[in-house]
Amino acid sequence: MSSLKRVCVLGSGNWGSTAARIIGNNVLRLPDFDDRVNVWVYEELVNGRKLTEIINTEHENVKYLPGHKLPANVTAVADAREAVRGATHLVVVIPHQFVQDLLDSIRGSVGPGARAISLTKGIVISTQGMTTMTQIIHRALGIPAASLSGANIAGEIAEEKYCETTIGCADPVEAAVWSSLFNTPYFQVNCVSDVIGVEFCGALKNVVAVGAGFIDGLGLGNNTKAAIIRIGFLEMRRLALHMSDAQIQDATFMESCGMADVITTCYGGRNRLLAEAFVKTGKRMSQLEQEMLNGQKLQGYLTAGEAYSYIDSRAMTDNYPLFTNIYQICYEGKHPRSIFDGLNVDFSRDTRTPPPPLPSSSA
Amino acid sequence: MSSLKRVCVLGSGNWGSTAARIIGNNVLRLPDFDDRVNVWVYEELVNGRKLTEIINTEHENVKYLPGHKLPANVTAVADAREAVRGATHLVVVIPHQFVQDLLDSIRGSVGPGARAISLTKGIVISTQGMTTMTQIIHRALGIPAASLSGANIAGEIAEEKYCETTIGCADPVEAAVWSSLFNTPYFQVNCVSDVIGVEFCGALKNVVAVGAGFIDGLGLGNNTKAAIIRIGFLEMRRLALHMSDAQIQDATFMESCGMADVITTCYGGRNRLLAEAFVKTGKRMSQLEQEMLNGQKLQGYLTAGEAYSYIDSRAMTDNYPLFTNIYQICYEGKHPRSIFDGLNVDFSRDTRTPPPPLPSSSA
Repeated sequence: MSSLKRVCVLGSGNWGSTAARIIGNNVLRLPDFDDRVNVWVYEELVNGRKLTEIINTEHENVKYLPGHKLPANVTAVADAREAVRGATHLVVVIPHQFVQDLLDSIRGSVGPGARAISLTKGIVISTQGMTTMTQIIHRALGIPAASLSGANIAGEIAEEKYCETTIGCADPVEAAVWSSLFNTPYFQVNCVSDVIGVEFCGALKNVVAVGAGFIDGLGLGNNTKAAIIRIGFLEMRRLALHMSDAQIQDATFMESCGMADVITTCYGGRNRLLAEAFVKTGKRMSQLEQEMLNGQKLQGYLTAGEAYSYIDSRAMTDNYPLFTNIYQICYEGKHPRSIFDGLNVDFSRDTRTPPPPLPSSSA
Repeated sequence: MSSLKRVCVLGSGNWGSTAARIIGNNVLRLPDFDDRVNVWVYEELVNGRKLTEIINTEHENVKYLPGHKLPANVTAVADAREAVRGATHLVVVIPHQFVQDLLDSIRGSVGPGARAISLTKGIVISTQGMTTMTQIIHRALGIPAASLSGANIAGEIAEEKYCETTIGCADPVEAAVWSSLFNTPYFQVNCVSDVIGVEFCGALKNVVAVGAGFIDGLGLGNNTKAAIIRIGFLEMRRLALHMSDAQIQDATFMESCGMADVITTCYGGRNRLLAEAFVKTGKRMSQLEQEMLNGQKLQGYLTAGEAYSYIDSRAMTDNYPLFTNIYQICYEGKHPRSIFDGLNVDFSRDTRTPPPPLPSSSA
């Protein structure tokens, strides 16, 4: 029986295939890791052939990452339980609405020493607070879970265009292992200990991107968009400080998962795109989701609603004018021009109070 | 003799004319201010007519802000000494290379109770440290000087597209007066006490924009550009903390003059544009300045050289890999692809150490 560590990537969409490609190459030079990397693939037929069979013979996910070869040590597996067997490192990278079912299906097959990292975006905010993917993974499997998020539009990474990402992992030794699996010259990993903060940024940035899309839809310029990005970023940070009981660190917002991802998502990305179309066409968001996302729900639109429910339940809308305006434009029929209402909020005191000095030993 | 305050705008380019338009409208509802706003105009002939005469009859700067009427209470004056006579509030908004001569020419005409605000970008960095426009104004005229900078591409403001700006003013009462002169529903002013920090951001962001232009020239995408913006922003902040002996505040970087201006300048703006052309055409920067800026010097290129001289003189290039790479690409013929060399620097500890606690009175 091998004592080597082994990776299983759960998910084989665009981002999952990109991650499998990076990890598949990296394990070849990591002596602690088995060369074989399993990828759980949701089985489907592509031109009459099984997708797993195509991946395992042609070494390419022709449906979700066409044009980019996967290393030959990456193996597609259709059965999730079989895929995770013997894996020490699980990479969760499937759409958030499928995560719970998948975790339930593999529970008995994951070894006790395994650990996970979530590349899946999407936290759930209620009036009570938030639940993140790593919390869901930890509850379902009883293993520690790290998070990965950054300015990472998947198509650009597959083309090996330089970017950065952030891994949130509480244990520095484990963080270094995850980094060794993901880091490449064109995909630069920074690690922070703030697991939740990384996930929070990955979800909330989509709300800001909806605002940025409204600006594009209104035909306004770079100054306006930069103002919306700045205010949105500071409302994100303010909400994090409020919700997280000192768990989320200010410094996380300066990492790729924070500032950089807000920027890239506000200039590229489909949240921006749909919000622009929302203004230009006057169609309802649900109709645009049907037309432009094959009926998938737009993340920023959902998160805007959830964040508002939390903010409103605590009578804090005056402190979050941008998030409130975005919510009301999305859900209550307010005109997109109202995005500017009441934005002159002072954020300059939104830093954590430093902890009080320790009592003097000479006292 | 009137006890009313009076504004003189020194400069009538694109940004100066835009500022005169905003101030000219605002003074009409400020009871403390004389309605008349003088604008010093560098006299030139436009289609055989004096520019001052055109502005004073047609209420439009047809050369530098065509298509936007100035309020009738804005008066163009060709003689700078005459323009500033009786003015209590001087708005300096001419290209930086002309500032010293202008200040020398008006020295005897500025009253002792006057104060100034600098909209002129451009600090001078030497191996000794930096000199800013407000310092130059204060030395030349002996009056207090505030600064104004933000995500403010002038053309978009003239079109009344929403944006924000930052005023740096040490005195909060004076800050409120400056704010009342500039603030409009579409031009939102935030005030900070950090005069130098506002100016520092306004100059250094141009270096980051040169880097962003290289990325565009290389045909890379949103992820890459966001990474360069993030790292550039953090190198700016690091350099500020190093140079300013605790004068510049961290929080200033979160204002419009910081984060938002870096973004807008890296997506719009001519620093980005020339740097993109530099990569795509392979021409020398001086040739591009000739072709694209009528021989004017590109600010980001100059500042990159000055910042490097400071960094290099202190053997700190390893701590500023992006600024160093941008310098070497601009001045030493390194390939633009080398912009990524050594960028994996840890910025997470770049926050000010809070001041030590005051000695306990019970000790």
